[in-house]
Amino acid sequence: MADISTCPPLTRSSVQAAHALIAPHIHRTPVLTCSTLTRLASTPQDASSPLFTPSTPGAAPASPRINLLFKCENTQRIGAFKARGAFHALSRLRQTSPELLEKGVITHSSGNHAQALALAAREFGVKATIVMPEISTKSKIEGTRSQGAEVVFSGSTSVEREAVVKRLMNERGMTLVPPYDHPDVILGQGTLALELEGQAREVLGGYRGAGTGRGGCSFAAGRGLEGQGTNGTTDGTTYGATKGLDAVIAPCGGGGMLSGVATALDGTGIRVFGAEPSFQGADDATRGVAAGKRVESVKTLTIADGLRTPLGEITWKVVSNKEKVKGFYSVTEEQIKAAMRLMLERAKIFIEPSAAVGVAVALYNEEFRSMVEREAGPEGWDVGVVLTGGNTTMEAIAKLFAS
Amino acid sequence: MADISTCPPLTRSSVQAAHALIAPHIHRTPVLTCSTLTRLASTPQDASSPLFTPSTPGAAPASPRINLLFKCENTQRIGAFKARGAFHALSRLRQTSPELLEKGVITHSSGNHAQALALAAREFGVKATIVMPEISTKSKIEGTRSQGAEVVFSGSTSVEREAVVKRLMNERGMTLVPPYDHPDVILGQGTLALELEGQAREVLGGYRGAGTGRGGCSFAAGRGLEGQGTNGTTDGTTYGATKGLDAVIAPCGGGGMLSGVATALDGTGIRVFGAEPSFQGADDATRGVAAGKRVESVKTLTIADGLRTPLGEITWKVVSNKEKVKGFYSVTEEQIKAAMRLMLERAKIFIEPSAAVGVAVALYNEEFRSMVEREAGPEGWDVGVVLTGGNTTMEAIAKLFAS
Repeated sequence: MADISTCPPLTRSSVQAAHALIAPHIHRTPVLTCSTLTRLASTPQDASSPLFTPSTPGAAPASPRINLLFKCENTQRIGAFKARGAFHALSRLRQTSPELLEKGVITHSSGNHAQALALAAREFGVKATIVMPEISTKSKIEGTRSQGAEVVFSGSTSVEREAVVKRLMNERGMTLVPPYDHPDVILGQGTLALELEGQAREVLGGYRGAGTGRGGCSFAAGRGLEGQGTNGTTDGTTYGATKGLDAVIAPCGGGGMLSGVATALDGTGIRVFGAEPSFQGADDATRGVAAGKRVESVKTLTIADGLRTPLGEITWKVVSNKEKVKGFYSVTEEQIKAAMRLMLERAKIFIEPSAAVGVAVALYNEEFRSMVEREAGPEGWDVGVVLTGGNTTMEAIAKLFAS
Repeated sequence: MADISTCPPLTRSSVQAAHALIAPHIHRTPVLTCSTLTRLASTPQDASSPLFTPSTPGAAPASPRINLLFKCENTQRIGAFKARGAFHALSRLRQTSPELLEKGVITHSSGNHAQALALAAREFGVKATIVMPEISTKSKIEGTRSQGAEVVFSGSTSVEREAVVKRLMNERGMTLVPPYDHPDVILGQGTLALELEGQAREVLGGYRGAGTGRGGCSFAAGRGLEGQGTNGTTDGTTYGATKGLDAVIAPCGGGGMLSGVATALDGTGIRVFGAEPSFQGADDATRGVAAGKRVESVKTLTIADGLRTPLGEITWKVVSNKEKVKGFYSVTEEQIKAAMRLMLERAKIFIEPSAAVGVAVALYNEEFRSMVEREAGPEGWDVGVVLTGGNTTMEAIAKLFAS
């Protein structure tokens, strides 16, 4: 990858430039609303529910008004937002070091980043090599190969993995595209927030005008940043102001996407919040920010498997800046599962567990909910939630929800 | 319900009038495309796959070109197209016999029709009584009650059920709203085809123009019949002609929705096909049409539980008319499951098994596929598929896909 000192600065205009670069390669994914989910988010939790975790012992359930708008990156190419960062990284390489791009790209990952890099490399006509632990599941190995990438196996520790990557970089002159801790990747992921910002205006504009369609789900499509496709929810209620989104919740693993979103929305007045699983210390950003120091390693088996990673050095700098990310909120495994169930059964949107973490914060995190009640008042907030991806299988779901 | 002799005739213009009546109450559901599903539909099946059932023994897999457009009634109010028929039946009652409407409405159902009628009655401010077998699952009983309807229990045979309905009709003067075999219900369900027809033009128009977004899913939203929201798939390939849809596949249980779709599209040149499960004789329409006589009873436990019903007398007249429904195609339980898996895992759309039956015909029925190859030639067809509903649970899915 480009030497970090030569990368564009982490600013909103750099994200706008990134969007122009990658637009021919990515989907402008829809923004969807579901009045059932919005009603649930705007109803105090049942204090007797096992999912209820009061912000202070004995506190009554908060009573915020939250209108939810979902940015559906589960319908992005390869089924996750990671396509944005990969296409941006390769677009920038083509601009700045075409001779390096020729020699191919490499990364270590067994998840969405591997598929994204493989896709982008294929479309750019260059080789991609993905280093995966030998113990990776067959479906992930085959999925990556089906995108035309070469899979090279390593041991399963990070030391073993990085040794293989180093060797191949030296031998083949390949360029490493890291999964999150690089400005080009961060700027690419941030492009989703620019789209969400514009699409939310469309939805919220239609929201007050139209007279049809209560109780279900609506979509805002659109062909470009000026796309006209809107189909707002219309239960007659108004939330927030007409100006657009009040806040965005984005899941945080390595922090690449959250950093990109916070960079994209910097200066807009839209508040950005990070969402994490709490299981086995997966809430490393929450803990790091509280302690004023990055948590450097995490070992968790949360069902939100895209969020098992700690923050990187660059992403830490962005997300620990209160001007950029207002706060972090974490949720339990059961809350993630409950949110995932509602998204599937009620909103009819198929997402992976990691993508349900932001939804779970809006529905179940009492710190978040009482903060919204306090700050937004009776007007409430229009809150965008990033649905990061939809790459899971029926078998995994069957296992998760088997009674 | 209105005496059938006073109902509007089963014509396209009656469906248009029905749409105007119900538009304030229903969602204009999105039409979605997914290039992965279209690629699969346009690729010959693997002859060694256990899902492959050749049209004649030893026949090679057909090689049709099929561009799929999904009409997402899973995001309709109450999660299924049934809301359309219920709102139309009550709108017509209000027009023709407001004194009857005052006394309330009744039906027997434990499925989507019960929820739809309960919702429509609540919105019209009248009472709804739903007769359900005592053995109904708790979630269905509670779902119907949560829409504000009264649930009255009966035995589980159709004789016991109808006796309870008759008694309540006599005692309370309530009007029966049958689930499918009535013109007002048929005309209401048919409104989805008018929307699909217009939305398909939008999608197919955008399809050739835009240059972005390959390999994923796209949506066409839109605020009214002239809505401008489009976001076509754009892999550069062209299918069918620019005129709009070539065909529609709709699942067939009692035949109310299929009759409505065939009525709505009559005279447009868009071919309409019915899709059925074959398990335990659930393919009653296929068999009835072959024999020239309606199959009057069906006893099947197909996983497509919305399609366990035989055709009614009125729906039989419509769907057995070759001018209206060109043909019926049926699929196995394994083919339905495979189609459902692809819709969830790849298209990221949450549907119930009944809604996967039309998709399964396009992907796996070799009679259908070789017919398209023959009739459409290398140009292929743009085929609308009705996704009827999305009312299933994680537990049901876990059971269906547990390995």
